[in-house]
This record gives sequence, structure tokens and C-alpha cells, in this order.
Amino acid sequence: MVDILHRVGITSSPDDVYAALTTIDGLAGWWTQDTAGDGDAGGVIQFRFQNAPPPSGFDMKVLETQPAERVLWEVVDGPQEWIGTQIRFELTQEDDFTIVLFSHEGWKEPVKFMYHCSTKWATFLMSLKRLIETGKGEPAPHDVKISNWH
Amino acid sequence: MVDILHRVGITSSPDDVYAALTTIDGLAGWWTQDTAGDGDAGGVIQFRFQNAPPPSGFDMKVLETQPAERVLWEVVDGPQEWIGTQIRFELTQEDDFTIVLFSHEGWKEPVKFMYHCSTKWATFLMSLKRLIETGKGEPAPHDVKISNWH
Repeated sequence: MVDILHRVGITSSPDDVYAALTTIDGLAGWWTQDTAGDGDAGGVIQFRFQNAPPPSGFDMKVLETQPAERVLWEVVDGPQEWIGTQIRFELTQEDDFTIVLFSHEGWKEPVKFMYHCSTKWATFLMSLKRLIETGKGEPAPHDVKISNWH
Repeated sequence: MVDILHRVGITSSPDDVYAALTTIDGLAGWWTQDTAGDGDAGGVIQFRFQNAPPPSGFDMKVLETQPAERVLWEVVDGPQEWIGTQIRFELTQEDDFTIVLFSHEGWKEPVKFMYHCSTKWATFLMSLKRLIETGKGEPAPHDVKISNWH
């Protein structure tokens, strides 16, 4: 089992970051504009990507939401390599920053798609940072392109 | 042992990417302007970062260079967590892209510093892509700041 790990710091309150991780408007502002569903614990969120090859999105079951502290999802539909993996956001405060410790845990093998997703997650977390700090993120389809796999 | 993995695609030849990974001018154009040493196999490269707390840089021994295909370094001096880890760039061609499969291998533990370095590597690999595609990267001290740890 291998994990994708990232850390970003956002000059804002943990409450603002938490809102961007649990509301549909917030999520649509940094990951993909085509987001629907329910971001509260027990809900399922549908993330869709128009430009990606099928299966062109992810369904996340929200396993845990701890206001201003933690969000945990499990992938229940999407690319085969993602199903059953978990995505975790841990929030803490340091100096003037809300620190996001991100992990995408439980990949069975370090396949090339995992290399791609690792870099892509970094660009989306920078989009989250930008959304909260400036009011404007870079969600799909306006996301940063990193390669022939988008 | 845990690894940092990334994948970017650069619209250029493998030779151009290889040059940016093995010449001091190339490396100084995307990672840190304060780069010195010898990027050929058997050499040691000194990367320094003015704004980082001490130890403020890395010494890499170049273990392997395969033109247009592979570069492998081992960290011989720097932060304790980095010493003995290896950094690998594997180059292949797909469509109009040179694909860089990057790994920073052999971390003993997934410490918070590893989360930080994972995100930071992504931004530096995007700087490598930008350098080669546009002629201008974002090396330190002009690198993208991701948090209170820079």
C-alpha cells in the first residue's frame, strides 16, 4: 500500500478551509466545477471532469467531517485504482496559516497513474489555497495542465 | 520506506529535458539559482537555498546518467531525513511530450517534512516544465511559496 502525501499552508482560518472541503460551492471552486451531492458525513459527492477519458469522475462517500479539523472520504466509484482508497484532509493552525496535511491513502501499487495523480493533487491543493486567499481557484476544466494526461 | 512520486509531461525532446537535469545552468533554471558542482555521473552537485533554515541545501552525488533516459542522484548531505534517499528522473517519449517519471525514494518515515517536500517537488517539476517550454522557470529564491515552510 502506498500513499500520496502533500502539505500546503493557507493564510485563512481553519473554518474557511473546512467550508471549501465540505460545501459543493467550495469544492466546485478548486477541484472541478462539475461537483454535486452532499459533503456532510454520510453523504456522497460526485466529482466529474469533462475533458478526461471515461470513467470521467469520482464518487466519494464522506466518512468523517470534524469541523475545522478533519475531512475523510472513501472513493466508492471511479477509476479502478481509486476505488477503496481514502482521501484525508487534516487541518491545524500554525502562525497565520491553516496547514492542510493531505493524504490519498491505500493505493495497491505505485502505478504511473499514481505518479500523475500525485502531481495533479499538488496543483489542485494550490488551487484550494488560491481560492481561499484570492477568491479564485483553478478548478477543472480550467485546471493547470501537467502532461498529455492533462 | 516511503516514496514521493510525480509525473509531468514536457513538450520538448528528451535531450532538452536531460540537459536541464545534468547541466548546472539547466538545474539553476528550475530548482535553485544557487547551484554548483558537476552534474555528470560520479560528480557531486551542491544545491543551496538562501531563504530556508539551515541546513539550507542538499549535496547530491550523481549515481547514474543515461542520456535522454535517466538521471539518478543520492543525497549525501542536507537535512537528516534526506540523507541516503535517492532521486530519480526517468524520461520517455509519448505523443509530443517527454514524460518525466520522478521519484524521491527511501524516506524512512512519512514525516510532515515529507508531505511538504512532495508538494514542493511538484511545483519545482512544473518549474522544469515551464523552463523548457517557455525559457523561464521559477527556481529559488523565486519559487512558488506553498506554506509557512516556503
